Amino acid sequence: MDEFSFIDLIKQKTYRQPSIIRGIGDDAAVFRQSSQDIVTAVDTFVEDVHFSRSTMSPFHIGYRSLAANISDLSAMGAKPAFYLVSIVIPSSWKEDDLDGLYKGMADLGAAYQMDLIGGDTVSGNELALSITVIGFVNSDKVRYRHTAKPGDVVFVTGTLGDSAAGFHILTNPGEYLDQAYYSRRHRMPTIRVDFASELENLSRVTLNDISDGIANEANEIAEDSHVNLTVYEEKLPVSQNYNQFPESQQSKWQLYGGEDFELLGTVPSQDWDELKDIADRTQTPVTEVGYVSKNTDNGHYVWLVDRQQTNKLLEKKGYTHLK
Amino acid sequence: MDEFSFIDLIKQKTYRQPSIIRGIGDDAAVFRQSSQDIVTAVDTFVEDVHFSRSTMSPFHIGYRSLAANISDLSAMGAKPAFYLVSIVIPSSWKEDDLDGLYKGMADLGAAYQMDLIGGDTVSGNELALSITVIGFVNSDKVRYRHTAKPGDVVFVTGTLGDSAAGFHILTNPGEYLDQAYYSRRHRMPTIRVDFASELENLSRVTLNDISDGIANEANEIAEDSHVNLTVYEEKLPVSQNYNQFPESQQSKWQLYGGEDFELLGTVPSQDWDELKDIADRTQTPVTEVGYVSKNTDNGHYVWLVDRQQTNKLLEKKGYTHLK
Repeated sequence: MDEFSFIDLIKQKTYRQPSIIRGIGDDAAVFRQSSQDIVTAVDTFVEDVHFSRSTMSPFHIGYRSLAANISDLSAMGAKPAFYLVSIVIPSSWKEDDLDGLYKGMADLGAAYQMDLIGGDTVSGNELALSITVIGFVNSDKVRYRHTAKPGDVVFVTGTLGDSAAGFHILTNPGEYLDQAYYSRRHRMPTIRVDFASELENLSRVTLNDISDGIANEANEIAEDSHVNLTVYEEKLPVSQNYNQFPESQQSKWQLYGGEDFELLGTVPSQDWDELKDIADRTQTPVTEVGYVSKNTDNGHYVWLVDRQQTNKLLEKKGYTHLK
Repeated sequence: MDEFSFIDLIKQKTYRQPSIIRGIGDDAAVFRQSSQDIVTAVDTFVEDVHFSRSTMSPFHIGYRSLAANISDLSAMGAKPAFYLVSIVIPSSWKEDDLDGLYKGMADLGAAYQMDLIGGDTVSGNELALSITVIGFVNSDKVRYRHTAKPGDVVFVTGTLGDSAAGFHILTNPGEYLDQAYYSRRHRMPTIRVDFASELENLSRVTLNDISDGIANEANEIAEDSHVNLTVYEEKLPVSQNYNQFPESQQSKWQLYGGEDFELLGTVPSQDWDELKDIADRTQTPVTEVGYVSKNTDNGHYVWLVDRQQTNKLLEKKGYTHLK
């Protein structure tokens, strides 16, 4: 199949976004957005670095890669609108595999009314998938990392450590409880699009998505906001039967596991109830896990109160890819 | 050097575009554009497929890759504003090489007041550079391929075949006239940003950029506009001393050579003089090379009148990458 027929194959028959003017088919795509700000990010995923076909089907690879990108938009409070896909294709990837990969993206894209508006397909020796996402957000409702203030409640959505647990199951075959659930959390992570977008009713929310682990993301908020964060380990939410996994791993996966694509945020304590209402409305589990305090010596620290009630510095280290 | 220090290195200290709200440093970049339409495209370049380090320095690779992307925006009549760079880095690329690559992009970007607003750096086995460009254009001035009409003048900017000639020089060492000129045309192609943008004064212009060769791009216009195009081979503009190259190649490079990143367009004949004025103002050589006619049997053909005055069908075939 040549490049042109492949493009015909992946090209949407109709577009969903009202702002689209021209999708795939000319030198570039065109859209119009006069009332909201435009948010954009790009992420690249390389075979055997970011994913392996031994644990993921092409469909999962496409789905999870786009999910990771949409998650960046959610972390800005933006609603996803468009994506562009650039892909380096090795000869080991056959037409069916590529079809699966694009279906994975198309499935998730459709769930959020996104349109595929551009891309490039080139040949090479290893599969590299590069996705650019574009989303919209009301002008004064962009959610940055630098807006946390002392007294804020620190919260997370969903549960932590599931993606690493799912990867563990997929790479260490055996008998596990909720095996399908954990595998799915790894391959098809839940993203928090509606919750993030509905937060626009609040005057101030600080958001970061958990792609490298809460230790890393909490430190990013602390650094950018010039504050300290304190997180209680025993408050970190876990899924049912999470305690079946090796005890040495449980805490590690939660703190440094990454790729859960849940949101870590801070909100003024007086808005906490309203945030919980929004969470309920969008069927999003949220858990208060700590608080923001002043940095007293101009440092910015993340403190973890562990299960023994010991205060430990939670260092900025995160997920290391599968290589 | 880890990913974070590398990002610090490539991050611009200040931004040039008035529409920028937030550049590199959060989960995504943010900009505002309420008065113009937004145009976006992505292209990927793989080492030893799209370029080779034997003929290009890292600086050239960066420069030409961004040029190719900006050229897509020009072909839409849009002014470049932003770019995002995603790169897969193999261990064979050292810090200095990467620095050169980003400098090549930064140099060209600065020339057009562009801002680097996002990206991703990941490791892998082969260098793959994926660039997303974003530009702006007045709403009714997007230049598509489907608007050519019978009676239009067909024109090209600059000269054709130079990039292939430059590649020939770089891969077949010997004595050539204007060696530096041709090498530069291959490595640092001229793009037609100002000309394309100033065309907004005209009511209708059809544009396509010559990335795969005029044969391919003329056919795209014919297909999308449901017209025929006639191009005179003897009118195709060439650079000085182009006739020094093997006679068998001269015509081939002009028609199918590709990567010249000149513009191919059509314009109503009554607007031809005004277009030439714009070309003068923006110091852009333009040449009338043919005309648009009605497709009489519902086909869409590109006819080449060759040097023997024979009418030949110019087929849609283009540049095949260096593999």
